[in-house]
Amino acid sequence: MFDLIKTRRSTRKFKDAPVPDDLVEQVVEAGRYAPSGGNVQSTHFIVIQNPQVLQDIAEQVKQEFAKMDISEAANKSIANSITVSKTGNYVFHYGCPVLIITANKKGYGNNIADCSCALENMMLMANALDLGSVWVNQLRWLKENPVLIEAMKKLGMEEGERVYGALALGYPDTPDGKPVREITPRIGYKVDYIK
Amino acid sequence: MFDLIKTRRSTRKFKDAPVPDDLVEQVVEAGRYAPSGGNVQSTHFIVIQNPQVLQDIAEQVKQEFAKMDISEAANKSIANSITVSKTGNYVFHYGCPVLIITANKKGYGNNIADCSCALENMMLMANALDLGSVWVNQLRWLKENPVLIEAMKKLGMEEGERVYGALALGYPDTPDGKPVREITPRIGYKVDYIK
Repeated sequence: MFDLIKTRRSTRKFKDAPVPDDLVEQVVEAGRYAPSGGNVQSTHFIVIQNPQVLQDIAEQVKQEFAKMDISEAANKSIANSITVSKTGNYVFHYGCPVLIITANKKGYGNNIADCSCALENMMLMANALDLGSVWVNQLRWLKENPVLIEAMKKLGMEEGERVYGALALGYPDTPDGKPVREITPRIGYKVDYIK
Repeated sequence: MFDLIKTRRSTRKFKDAPVPDDLVEQVVEAGRYAPSGGNVQSTHFIVIQNPQVLQDIAEQVKQEFAKMDISEAANKSIANSITVSKTGNYVFHYGCPVLIITANKKGYGNNIADCSCALENMMLMANALDLGSVWVNQLRWLKENPVLIEAMKKLGMEEGERVYGALALGYPDTPDGKPVREITPRIGYKVDYIK
């Protein structure tokens, strides 16, 4: 367990190869076994494997960011998304063959927390299956954007739901096809023990 | 991996026995290997193993909830915390021997998400080590409460940090001392596949 946790790293380069359905389902199943506040189980998984739909979403995200001004960026990552989108070359999901969007109820206090636990489970499960994955936040940043809300609704998002995170999933584009598993230092976290 | 994910369940009854430091550290270490937005690693783990400190926090949480009116409750769980606190019998952390508080920067967009991924890793690691754990949200609900902010600062929380979740950890109070691992149905989650 600890090895799989320690060797989980973000994959941002995917092979142009589909992931078999049974592997995708195992990853989603891991997400479904995450805990939820009061066991409400309200996380909604929208799993996109259709290449055209994936391309369309990337295009819409790019267009919406390109319309924004850098002054609207709430953080550096959003600023970067805007800047790159304006150049016309922005694929927020890194061209992954599978995008797992986690939506949840807008007014629910644990919406981000529940989606995050599900995403973490899915990242670990992907690692266990030799798949690469990375959390992508762009659809969350644009969660109140009317164009993206419409796009998400067409994909099954319900009235009153919003996107709180997403996972790009696929075979890592590495020489051996396996995820990079170099263990990175954890120096930023602060830990205080009170004994 | 999948077994450990599927058999993770919340433990809400703990044995009155301390957890050895090396096990606590393994759980925290799993939390530290969670991903963070832009790899900022700003989650701050405050690990409380001191029985008196644990008792004091439970008391403060109870007192603050008892002062609140049920009309202030943003959800059913908070309403329950208020109601039970008013009876004088409320121990939000279930008398656990270890409480791991995850704090993060107030204005940081991924504060809840990063803490949640760390908490999920720690819950899975606890399960792998035959320890029981449960996410407790009360310190997050009270994160802007001046009394609790002061208490958290005394425990090391920094200026500009807030609590976004916590984990109660300990040996499960079960006949065999192991966590309950019955696999519960996952019926609430909705999954849409777009192929």
